[in-house]
Amino acid sequence: MNKNRRPGGKENSMKDSIKALRELEKRLYAYQYAMAVADYDSETVAPPESSAGRAEAMEVLSRAYFDQLVSADTAALLQRAAADAETEQEKAEVRELQRSYDEIGKIPAEEYAAFTKLTQESMPAWGKAKRGNDFASFAPYLEKIVESLRAQAHYFAPDRDPYEVWLDRYEHGLTIAQCDTFFAALRETIVPLLAAIKERGSAIRTDFLYQNWPIEQQRKLSKKIMEVWGLDPDHCVLGETEHPFTSGFWHGDVRITTHYMPQDMFSNLYSVAHEGGHALYELNVDPKYDYTTLAGGATTGLHESQSRLFENYVGRSRAFIHYLYPTLLELFPQQLNGVTEEEIYRAVNRAEPSLIRTEADELTYSLHIMVRYELEKALMQGTLTVADLPAAWNAKYKEYLGVDVPDDTHGCLQDIHWAMGDMGYFPSYALGSAYSAQAVDDLRKTMDLDAQWAEGNMQPLKDALRSRVWQHGRAKEPQWLVQSLCGGAFDAAHYTNYLKNKYTELYGL
Amino acid sequence: MNKNRRPGGKENSMKDSIKALRELEKRLYAYQYAMAVADYDSETVAPPESSAGRAEAMEVLSRAYFDQLVSADTAALLQRAAADAETEQEKAEVRELQRSYDEIGKIPAEEYAAFTKLTQESMPAWGKAKRGNDFASFAPYLEKIVESLRAQAHYFAPDRDPYEVWLDRYEHGLTIAQCDTFFAALRETIVPLLAAIKERGSAIRTDFLYQNWPIEQQRKLSKKIMEVWGLDPDHCVLGETEHPFTSGFWHGDVRITTHYMPQDMFSNLYSVAHEGGHALYELNVDPKYDYTTLAGGATTGLHESQSRLFENYVGRSRAFIHYLYPTLLELFPQQLNGVTEEEIYRAVNRAEPSLIRTEADELTYSLHIMVRYELEKALMQGTLTVADLPAAWNAKYKEYLGVDVPDDTHGCLQDIHWAMGDMGYFPSYALGSAYSAQAVDDLRKTMDLDAQWAEGNMQPLKDALRSRVWQHGRAKEPQWLVQSLCGGAFDAAHYTNYLKNKYTELYGL
Repeated sequence: MNKNRRPGGKENSMKDSIKALRELEKRLYAYQYAMAVADYDSETVAPPESSAGRAEAMEVLSRAYFDQLVSADTAALLQRAAADAETEQEKAEVRELQRSYDEIGKIPAEEYAAFTKLTQESMPAWGKAKRGNDFASFAPYLEKIVESLRAQAHYFAPDRDPYEVWLDRYEHGLTIAQCDTFFAALRETIVPLLAAIKERGSAIRTDFLYQNWPIEQQRKLSKKIMEVWGLDPDHCVLGETEHPFTSGFWHGDVRITTHYMPQDMFSNLYSVAHEGGHALYELNVDPKYDYTTLAGGATTGLHESQSRLFENYVGRSRAFIHYLYPTLLELFPQQLNGVTEEEIYRAVNRAEPSLIRTEADELTYSLHIMVRYELEKALMQGTLTVADLPAAWNAKYKEYLGVDVPDDTHGCLQDIHWAMGDMGYFPSYALGSAYSAQAVDDLRKTMDLDAQWAEGNMQPLKDALRSRVWQHGRAKEPQWLVQSLCGGAFDAAHYTNYLKNKYTELYGL
Repeated sequence: MNKNRRPGGKENSMKDSIKALRELEKRLYAYQYAMAVADYDSETVAPPESSAGRAEAMEVLSRAYFDQLVSADTAALLQRAAADAETEQEKAEVRELQRSYDEIGKIPAEEYAAFTKLTQESMPAWGKAKRGNDFASFAPYLEKIVESLRAQAHYFAPDRDPYEVWLDRYEHGLTIAQCDTFFAALRETIVPLLAAIKERGSAIRTDFLYQNWPIEQQRKLSKKIMEVWGLDPDHCVLGETEHPFTSGFWHGDVRITTHYMPQDMFSNLYSVAHEGGHALYELNVDPKYDYTTLAGGATTGLHESQSRLFENYVGRSRAFIHYLYPTLLELFPQQLNGVTEEEIYRAVNRAEPSLIRTEADELTYSLHIMVRYELEKALMQGTLTVADLPAAWNAKYKEYLGVDVPDDTHGCLQDIHWAMGDMGYFPSYALGSAYSAQAVDDLRKTMDLDAQWAEGNMQPLKDALRSRVWQHGRAKEPQWLVQSLCGGAFDAAHYTNYLKNKYTELYGL
């Protein structure tokens, strides 16, 4: 009998470390679940002045999460599990948990909990400031957030640019240099296109866009989009918030939200289309990753690639608008009386410099992102103060988009991201668009997407995306997933070509 | 210099134990907050098939709560703090935390967490079973709940009747003998009254009750009730659920829910009135008890006394219906065309044996409670099996209320309480009514409540209740609070006299 192979020997102890790892992962899941549901509640149905008690609870919970993750026990467990991991899943769990450990392990526990509490307080403060056009009341929160994010970056990598630390956090491997190059390419494409459109673009009918669109009918349209996307109502519900978002608690419970505008039906339509793309990703992660660090979408860029794919590449395509047209006519017979599907297609794709990112068209959208990229970089690098933010914001909107910002509500207070403590997230919106442009180009090689979308048939597309990306959760490295999605090495030219072709045709340039 | 009085001596170490106690209390608060918000979410907006991931998270969180509360460290801390406590608040905190410790300290941690997970699963199972009239699908959950509650009672007091352990848990000091006496008195009052009404009661107009009451108008009525009760919308919101309830996260965040019935306007009216009474209690606990064990209402009986006071003593009074009448006419001009306020008063107070507890009138309500009291006592004492519950339920409804139960949806599946793991709670509904009858009698000695209610002025009543009960949270012992509320030793005769006088007058007996 070979002692090395006896039961109860090394093989069994290997299993023990993985088992302990899974138990830790489930504990971490539970705290994340609790914080996610409290966040969702706070954004959707909580009474306006309820944040103090939530912040107290969140501080304790985030501290408990921190204590579970960052400890000598966890460090030792990760070492044992790294040696013991056999399957691809086990190895990926160790890798992702080690990454989480490294990301927050150097932050003092008190600072980590205080930051959670700070963002709990800053989100409602932002909501109030936005409603009241009162940047000054939000500024002290933003100052503390910038200060804390700089400190956290410094703990993690004292010698690295603090903004790049956060870029890398959201999109592993992304550098400031890459971002600069990427945005320069976009700028070189978009700015001449916009100029050409302004100069000689054929007119687009917009008279029907701003009228009275009953909310009850808009709700029916949301339901229709969720049905076509195939968002199972047993596992995915739609709420209403100031700023639409998606929150995945686990693969069987994903929430999306929208914002109804009585004067603008298309805003909700494309919010649901966008958040629905996020939700499809979360809902379709392989259940075998439930309650582990491998559950959920991999990076923010990959997440945005899915949401923008469904919002823009599907939702704003001629094929899909052809499919949706009868529903739109049925829901809004008076409002769309005499409006053709081609006119709807042109209207929802028109390029028009504007004030609000979430309402922006596909072409100018990246300019909105560029403003935020440059400003958050400057805030994090210390070359811009919070007090100077509104003026800097307004100047960049004038420079890149040619619009005058009338107030901070429609300016630097419009997005919740910074109030949530997210800086370095915005570039992922533009990257996501670029990933999905390439993915759609690649899928078209073997699939007649337009024919499918014209019939409201999302199944072949969803099957491909599930296979390439969704099912994997975080089990694969982000670079692997981007290549898998794109069908090859990432190349931003697919996106710039897409914009050039689309807008040249649309405006007869 | 007297060494006994030097700083850093005994006085400082006393403060340390209290400080540590407060930190523990805040941690416990955070876990309770997380579980409460997840529960509320699950009852209000969560997708139907989302319970699996919630149950996993809840199991971890309740286990963490248990581990925080029940440990050698906590036991030692409680001992130190008991010796060190100086102020009334400190002493009360020690007392209440010790009570919590004693209540769950003897339950094995795994069983405690498993019970939380079980109730997470049984609540949606109950909802499904109720919707589908499928008791068999819910029975296995209820069997496990009964088994676990019996086991928990046994751990706590092995020699005591397990049902009495739970009665005492909800209403400290309550015994089965007291309950038997109390319900016997109610029975002696109610049964002859009901017989007299049936025999010679004057007729009550009910033709206007069941018609089409638009939900949108019902929503406006909910808002009106919340305004008159003075429920600050900054701290209290109304949701919609199958079964109305109140959930207080902390004194600044209290949620109430209702259920709209298109054919029955008064159901929602009195649900909001009832839950609003619970909410007023939670909202008015002194903020100095925030995040301690003294926050929130004291016992379920005291809580029900407040909800039933606002539902019945205020909401079903002639004075308040006089006040509300113009609003009702404005919201429902067609439905109430030709209906007088006296006819509304008589209709909402009519006594009529029925199937559904939450829809029951004030007189027969206690008979519904008596059915549940007797059945849950039998389940807990092992003299009734879960399999036999539907038949036993139907037999008692026939015996006490004279009605035939058509199906379990309208029978033993109607209430969520048992699915939540609450057995021993129901008697508090009847006790609460009796407490508030006595409180109202006492307040009338010095206040003209009818004159105030006829003007929609709840302030003097609220001031009195805040002073007598609400502000104290759990800082006072329940017996003290009951006496304070009632203005003297509790005497059920106030309640039986109230019922006799009210129904004798109403039906001209």
